[in-house]
Amino acid sequence: MTNILDRGTFETLDHNDELAPFREKFYLPEGLIYMDGNSLGAMPRAAVERSADVVKREWGEDLITSWNKNGWFHLSKKLGARLAPLMGAEEDEVMVCDATGINLFKLLSVALQLRPEHKVILMEGSNFPTDNYMAQGLVQQLGQGHEVRFIEQDNLIENITDEVAVVCLTHVHYKTGRMHDMAAITEKAHAVGALALWDLCHSAGAVPVDLNQCEADFAVGCGYKYLNGGPGAPAFLYMAKRHHGKAQQPLSGWWSHAAPFAFEQDYRPSENIWQMMTGTQPILSLSTLECGIEIMEQADMEKVREKSVRLGDLFIELMEQECSDYGFKLASPKNGTQRGSQVSFHHPEGYAIIQALIAEGVVGDFRAPDIMRFGLTPLYLGYADIWDAVARLSKIMAGKVWQKAEYQNRSAVT
Amino acid sequence: MTNILDRGTFETLDHNDELAPFREKFYLPEGLIYMDGNSLGAMPRAAVERSADVVKREWGEDLITSWNKNGWFHLSKKLGARLAPLMGAEEDEVMVCDATGINLFKLLSVALQLRPEHKVILMEGSNFPTDNYMAQGLVQQLGQGHEVRFIEQDNLIENITDEVAVVCLTHVHYKTGRMHDMAAITEKAHAVGALALWDLCHSAGAVPVDLNQCEADFAVGCGYKYLNGGPGAPAFLYMAKRHHGKAQQPLSGWWSHAAPFAFEQDYRPSENIWQMMTGTQPILSLSTLECGIEIMEQADMEKVREKSVRLGDLFIELMEQECSDYGFKLASPKNGTQRGSQVSFHHPEGYAIIQALIAEGVVGDFRAPDIMRFGLTPLYLGYADIWDAVARLSKIMAGKVWQKAEYQNRSAVT
Repeated sequence: MTNILDRGTFETLDHNDELAPFREKFYLPEGLIYMDGNSLGAMPRAAVERSADVVKREWGEDLITSWNKNGWFHLSKKLGARLAPLMGAEEDEVMVCDATGINLFKLLSVALQLRPEHKVILMEGSNFPTDNYMAQGLVQQLGQGHEVRFIEQDNLIENITDEVAVVCLTHVHYKTGRMHDMAAITEKAHAVGALALWDLCHSAGAVPVDLNQCEADFAVGCGYKYLNGGPGAPAFLYMAKRHHGKAQQPLSGWWSHAAPFAFEQDYRPSENIWQMMTGTQPILSLSTLECGIEIMEQADMEKVREKSVRLGDLFIELMEQECSDYGFKLASPKNGTQRGSQVSFHHPEGYAIIQALIAEGVVGDFRAPDIMRFGLTPLYLGYADIWDAVARLSKIMAGKVWQKAEYQNRSAVT
Repeated sequence: MTNILDRGTFETLDHNDELAPFREKFYLPEGLIYMDGNSLGAMPRAAVERSADVVKREWGEDLITSWNKNGWFHLSKKLGARLAPLMGAEEDEVMVCDATGINLFKLLSVALQLRPEHKVILMEGSNFPTDNYMAQGLVQQLGQGHEVRFIEQDNLIENITDEVAVVCLTHVHYKTGRMHDMAAITEKAHAVGALALWDLCHSAGAVPVDLNQCEADFAVGCGYKYLNGGPGAPAFLYMAKRHHGKAQQPLSGWWSHAAPFAFEQDYRPSENIWQMMTGTQPILSLSTLECGIEIMEQADMEKVREKSVRLGDLFIELMEQECSDYGFKLASPKNGTQRGSQVSFHHPEGYAIIQALIAEGVVGDFRAPDIMRFGLTPLYLGYADIWDAVARLSKIMAGKVWQKAEYQNRSAVT
């Protein structure tokens, strides 16, 4: 390395950062460096007023009339339409509803119906487990000889064979931040007659996504990470228009009926994206998600990506400069084009180090067995934050602060 | 009728009403008579502060640490345990999560697994359609020769035959308020080897329910009606302990895993009520539901029931006294013991009359084809409210106010 990085370098980058004004749109506790937006996004300041208004006026004052007057009935559709451009989808291909896993269950059910001759759901075993468990639950329930097959990235493409009904992958890996080539994998899936379902939990609002350009069939993703929708905010789902009306998702509540307010005795599926709904949605949680989406709409996703990659590159470079003696091993791709918006490191004492870091005001998180994970959220994370985070980490390592008993105690759920 | 009812009678009842102080725990717009708590419960005043605290402190300040620090991880279980006594269940038999229809799907799946030789799901065709549609979705998905059979109340008991796997009924009918005999039907179901699943959407917080006394197998219900949890608040589910660990619900997200934080590759079901969970819940919506549950815990359910029946009896009596010339026909049981906490009337102009009533500050609702529905919520509805509501209705009918074009327009979703 020829150039030594110093804080001034980072300050200059902040000074010239076109995205810097976005930070004011979020509330963050004084002094905290929050690098866990990939787990729970920070709070948009607008969410305070919005949630109060939904509670006091929409619920308290307007009561039942809010379903029409305040647009509750169409909120899932409206938010879907607003999210769609962020992921290269059409307005009528996206709905915001339920939870990621539930939406995955619906879409996998549809995929298996559309490919009755194919019996394999291809996934990564190292994926965040809820998708895998949902797929296994579906397969067990169907009892029709389907199989959830786990193949890791390195051997993925050649294992997309004509046995496969659907390739179901998380676009950006939750632990390592490694990003799949959506276009290439989708193309391979289609070449063998399979479909592609993408989990965008770590992609939506984090990296540019173009579902229609890639000819993706389905997608799901969550609202509370890079979309900053609030804890447990509803998820989204995408279904390419060519699949609308071709199969029926089984969680067929009344909102998915062709004429929900006819209150017919028998189910008749809607033939558009509404068929992917179930029933009434948690309006408070949906409403704060709108605040997060509103911010994201104002950001140029290409600029977000550019800053994200730069934050990651600098983080990695600075770790090499400042922390090379302490046994960290990069777990994320060094090449920014292959990385989502996070950087992870292996360290055998990762758990304790993360606890010590949190105590020093740098919030990252730990994922077993040894991953220290840092989310990079360009809308509220600055360049100097990276400098300060590494400085605090270096101090913790130099002083062996992580060895304190309080940081070793794993009783807490993480 | 020998005694003529006058407003004084109702005022005296309010004066002596032990439940009257509960009204102060709710916010209601000045002058509004809200008789739609069976659709969306009124807002507990505590919900304003609670939701602001969850947004500003728990999300904004504490961020990701809230999962432990503010108990988000255990909120579904904690609220389930608090709800359990209200329905005669044990603490570890109830969870608050997801939506009613989704919980119904899970429990029906379990029921069919537990009764593999029986192929019929017995329901009422006149039920609120979402339950029926979910059951039909499940049966179609399974493709194992199951049948959703619709039988109405009058012929119900004799149709619970040994073909039936599960009797799945809404305890209190959403249109008429007619209440099933949970004990007798459950007993008959068990006698033929079937199971009983009760939808308590119009029962929880409205009428006394004793699931374990009735030996019910499963139950679901919603949080936003008589539990006053806020729009689209998560639902609850109940599974009798004897069924825990005997079958696996298919929406098996990571929260339902035996060791969710081990992040194992393969699914391993929890053997207790956690197996009925899926994944992350909408925390804001869950949190305001706690405010509703807190109020309900302070109310004596027997007193709530007593007042509810009396409100209903007086409403029916007063309608006979004041509105007998206008063509209303009682749609609910006249006998209060057979009625939930609502009173409904048939009227061919029901839609327009309800619109005119709402314009006069009395909120009831309309259900096609001709039902005018009035929810009786003893914690925030007084006796004089009944007098005033009927007085306003009588005036609307006498003046044919409902004939105005603005009340006839059905463009709005209702």
